Amino acid sequence: MSSKVTVVEQILNANDSLAVQNKDKLEANNVLGINVMASPGSGKTSVILRTIEALKDSLQLGVVEGDTAAVTIDADKVISAGMPAVQINTGGQCHLDAVMLGNALPQMPLAEIDLMIVENVGNLICPASFALGTHFNVVIASIPEGDDKPYKYPNIYRGIDALILNKMDLLPYIDFDVDYFRRGIEILNPNARFFLMSCKTGEGVKEWADWLRQRVAIFKNR
Amino acid sequence: MSSKVTVVEQILNANDSLAVQNKDKLEANNVLGINVMASPGSGKTSVILRTIEALKDSLQLGVVEGDTAAVTIDADKVISAGMPAVQINTGGQCHLDAVMLGNALPQMPLAEIDLMIVENVGNLICPASFALGTHFNVVIASIPEGDDKPYKYPNIYRGIDALILNKMDLLPYIDFDVDYFRRGIEILNPNARFFLMSCKTGEGVKEWADWLRQRVAIFKNR
Repeated sequence: MSSKVTVVEQILNANDSLAVQNKDKLEANNVLGINVMASPGSGKTSVILRTIEALKDSLQLGVVEGDTAAVTIDADKVISAGMPAVQINTGGQCHLDAVMLGNALPQMPLAEIDLMIVENVGNLICPASFALGTHFNVVIASIPEGDDKPYKYPNIYRGIDALILNKMDLLPYIDFDVDYFRRGIEILNPNARFFLMSCKTGEGVKEWADWLRQRVAIFKNR
Repeated sequence: MSSKVTVVEQILNANDSLAVQNKDKLEANNVLGINVMASPGSGKTSVILRTIEALKDSLQLGVVEGDTAAVTIDADKVISAGMPAVQINTGGQCHLDAVMLGNALPQMPLAEIDLMIVENVGNLICPASFALGTHFNVVIASIPEGDDKPYKYPNIYRGIDALILNKMDLLPYIDFDVDYFRRGIEILNPNARFFLMSCKTGEGVKEWADWLRQRVAIFKNR
């Protein structure tokens, strides 16, 4: 094994050990954490706002917003929706890591929330390599991105717990083979839940919210 | 200055010096190179296929396809369109760099082509940090990605020579403020050319192809 590979492994191990600390902190506060990854513009923030709307009467949410620049566009929307938001400005970095999340956690009122959603930086590659300490990984894809993405960017789709295929309202206007896309996901991860969604029409939001509510219930009864 | 910063600068300098070698090789062969960057699913390959169609009677093109996985979906399309294509499999890496392009150039019939288009890995962050040795940087954005992207991912939009706003055919179905988007580009780069395009309808392809043809003519008369 070359020294170069060893260095990479050490970096990942340091991140992984900090991710364990983050998970411990979430569990000590009885908070389920999910890591939402996606391409830029897939509708991560819209899905989160729909999720808040669907769950706000039954669960208290908190949102961590990962951004590469110091713009609070997404965090402002979450706060307007009535939930606490903490923004991480990565300073140009292409992903969140366990250090960044660890530094953000003290700003999040963990004792008051049930479910913490982390919106990772919009990127289909790098976030896959950095565990954060959350309990579930979710990828949001969208119809305009094309049905070949699981075949072209397999790493991010591997090991996920749920896949949301968003912007279903655009399907009539775009050549997108949902079965071909879904097979690409299933080859990589036969057990991932698959949600068809449109944040515009509300299609699929209830199914996704029900799944989250169930995950939180199972977690709290652990 | 910390030792960490120094290391990053050394890496960039090594890449930059290899980028200069790539540029020298292109110029020795009288080939203009452009680096096309974009989010996954913005339509990079569709734009390249439209470009081949529009320019094939006047220019000989060559395409370098950057992919994170060993799938030849995009390269196959270029070859079907009658132009030489070389695929770079980055092995999961999130961007092309000058080393990878340098290794690909011997596979490209440089003596026979006028214009080499490099399709970078689909990523709005990392490719911005690695010069390849091409002459122009072009970013393709698309309507479904949302009009806030220049504000949220400023680094990739900075220092570009042209911006293609693709999938204009979807504008009637999506809330997208073209002026707001365009202002975001102009703040970062007042001199970038701005093309509105739809690969589906062909809108804007002629203007873009004319600009490229003009760039090649100016380059050949340098």
